[in-house]
Amino acid sequence: MTATLLRGGRPWGLGAPADILVEDGLIRRVGPALDAPAARLVDVSGRLVLPGLVEAHCHLDKTLYGGPWVPHSAGDSLAGRIGNDLARRAELGVPSVERIEALLRRMSAFGTTHVRTHTDIDPEAGLRGVEAVREAAGRVPVTVQQVAFPQHGVLTNPGTAELLEEALKSGVEAVGGLDPAGVDRDPVRHLDLIFGLAERYGAHLDIHLHDGGTLGAWELELITERTKALGLGGRVTVSHAYALGQLDDARQDRLAEGFAAAGVALATGAVYDFPVPPVKKMRAAGVVIACGHDGIRDLWGPYGSGDMLERAMHLAYRSTFRTDADIELALEAATYGGARALGLTGYGLSAGDRADLVVVPAAGAAEAVVTHPSRSLVMKDGSVLHN
Amino acid sequence: MTATLLRGGRPWGLGAPADILVEDGLIRRVGPALDAPAARLVDVSGRLVLPGLVEAHCHLDKTLYGGPWVPHSAGDSLAGRIGNDLARRAELGVPSVERIEALLRRMSAFGTTHVRTHTDIDPEAGLRGVEAVREAAGRVPVTVQQVAFPQHGVLTNPGTAELLEEALKSGVEAVGGLDPAGVDRDPVRHLDLIFGLAERYGAHLDIHLHDGGTLGAWELELITERTKALGLGGRVTVSHAYALGQLDDARQDRLAEGFAAAGVALATGAVYDFPVPPVKKMRAAGVVIACGHDGIRDLWGPYGSGDMLERAMHLAYRSTFRTDADIELALEAATYGGARALGLTGYGLSAGDRADLVVVPAAGAAEAVVTHPSRSLVMKDGSVLHN
Repeated sequence: MTATLLRGGRPWGLGAPADILVEDGLIRRVGPALDAPAARLVDVSGRLVLPGLVEAHCHLDKTLYGGPWVPHSAGDSLAGRIGNDLARRAELGVPSVERIEALLRRMSAFGTTHVRTHTDIDPEAGLRGVEAVREAAGRVPVTVQQVAFPQHGVLTNPGTAELLEEALKSGVEAVGGLDPAGVDRDPVRHLDLIFGLAERYGAHLDIHLHDGGTLGAWELELITERTKALGLGGRVTVSHAYALGQLDDARQDRLAEGFAAAGVALATGAVYDFPVPPVKKMRAAGVVIACGHDGIRDLWGPYGSGDMLERAMHLAYRSTFRTDADIELALEAATYGGARALGLTGYGLSAGDRADLVVVPAAGAAEAVVTHPSRSLVMKDGSVLHN
Repeated sequence: MTATLLRGGRPWGLGAPADILVEDGLIRRVGPALDAPAARLVDVSGRLVLPGLVEAHCHLDKTLYGGPWVPHSAGDSLAGRIGNDLARRAELGVPSVERIEALLRRMSAFGTTHVRTHTDIDPEAGLRGVEAVREAAGRVPVTVQQVAFPQHGVLTNPGTAELLEEALKSGVEAVGGLDPAGVDRDPVRHLDLIFGLAERYGAHLDIHLHDGGTLGAWELELITERTKALGLGGRVTVSHAYALGQLDDARQDRLAEGFAAAGVALATGAVYDFPVPPVKKMRAAGVVIACGHDGIRDLWGPYGSGDMLERAMHLAYRSTFRTDADIELALEAATYGGARALGLTGYGLSAGDRADLVVVPAAGAAEAVVTHPSRSLVMKDGSVLHN
């Protein structure tokens, strides 16, 4: 493969302009005025170079993206949305390989190189979603990690546990959970079951937690205890964790310490008006924070663009981040934080890292987040996709 | 002036495609297959036609838009932001006619045809802001209404009251207020003073109210009482009104009834993580709701694009609006609601209305808000500005 030399960009975090030499899908050298006469030259002078964006929480299998506008038809409760989803997914041809592919192409054009997606697993859908996502992912240069997601309950939906296991056997990278108390009604058994699966299959674990207040806080303790006891640190993520935004400072602090010590990451998208975890405090405690859209144009809601810089803006905005340093935390969540939550290796802007890059016209991280401008260049595994 | 025929668009609210014939700055006819052989023909087939977007709350005079990125430098309190603003505005050349013009041009490109902007008035700045906004507004085809805004207090900042009056004498259309209790420390005298000015000069009144909870609710009562007593209905707007989002249902209901009866409008931008007034409930009670960005790229914060469809998305999103009908309320705030708050006449999509139009590729209002797509056409006073 011909080498590529990105000339004159400003790699995020380096503090000075530097060329980046890419060969065989890897970053080979980073430095000023690199000499590589045989390389293809791409001028990115003055532009900000970021590692590929990481979408750490979405639902590709549900998307209606790329099709005509579908007016939202669900009631105003979580139960209403679950019921509407079940009732209408067949009518609308969900999951659709074409829709998933369309969304992945859009994400890729925005510079997303890695995606973690929660795929519905239930006795009616079986593993159809897993297969559809796999097929679409094979067509687009984005690395997709699936979570076998019991959207309609595990204990309350017989047959689901077996299907989660089947999904893991088929190569799905992570097992999911959903409101162990609020939805599945037996948090201890729910968590023991999914932690058991994660341990047995060497899988990641990513748990949807909408349960609020003290109930959610207690479930966060249960998750932290199990992560620690089973030594699953670095492989466990809690998604949404609305409760965190509703607790007093002291309780937030104790939970943050627990997450950091046990290796529990958080994924948030700052969606709708739901409480946002205290990102700055969590990061200060050493907790990994990832970022994702949640649903994009689906039966759960019509919003979402697939642009992770825009999503980082939502996270920064809802966090009332105004200074550059604060806003940069949101970009970190959409890049390095997501990479850590997903367990990616070779991620970054150093020699030896995979050449997954996105270039934007921005003075720095804060401007990139706030303005989320058109991408100047997207590179995946060393190939220029968009320039 | 040559007539223009917009062919085949779908005027919002009409339910069917219709041509729009524009002449001498006005909409002359709206209907299917209009015959106007001499007219310039513009094909907008299948696209959604909206009335010009109304930015009902911004701060043009403060903007740094169009210049290089300025890292945010204020502390984390309202007092800190006020102090930072005072300290740095001279250094950064605020107000700048060029920056204001740049932002107005951006707003116009996004289809905004009317703007209400709060211009700082204080003994140090005098009326420099008013003059700068006036000069910039003269260069861009956007109708700009100014509010003489006591950003640094009225009673607590001697000389300001006189300057507010001077601004009104000079033709500024509205007088502002700012947290009569929380900032200016004497809500009754503050409100009596600005209501008196509004009455005396036939001006509109637009009051910033960040004061929260029961304090803010009580101030909303004071405002409602004065609006009613002085017969100023239709000329009074409360901006932000964070308190409304913090009250129980019964208190919200009582205030909503009072606003509707007295003719008090609300302007909200759903900014940062601050509470959003209950838009659906307020509209159901008959309260006029307008929408605006608040600051755009200024010393108070780096966010904001100037796109009122995107801003409507923020309002819909924070209101957890998912259905088309609900999301449409946000677009109403960015159009008809803003027009009513600003006291515009001849606003709309009917024959006889001013030909201020924006055309977007969207199936309907909800899609226009959610995706806030590129504008297909912008027309102001019958002139095509962007096509």
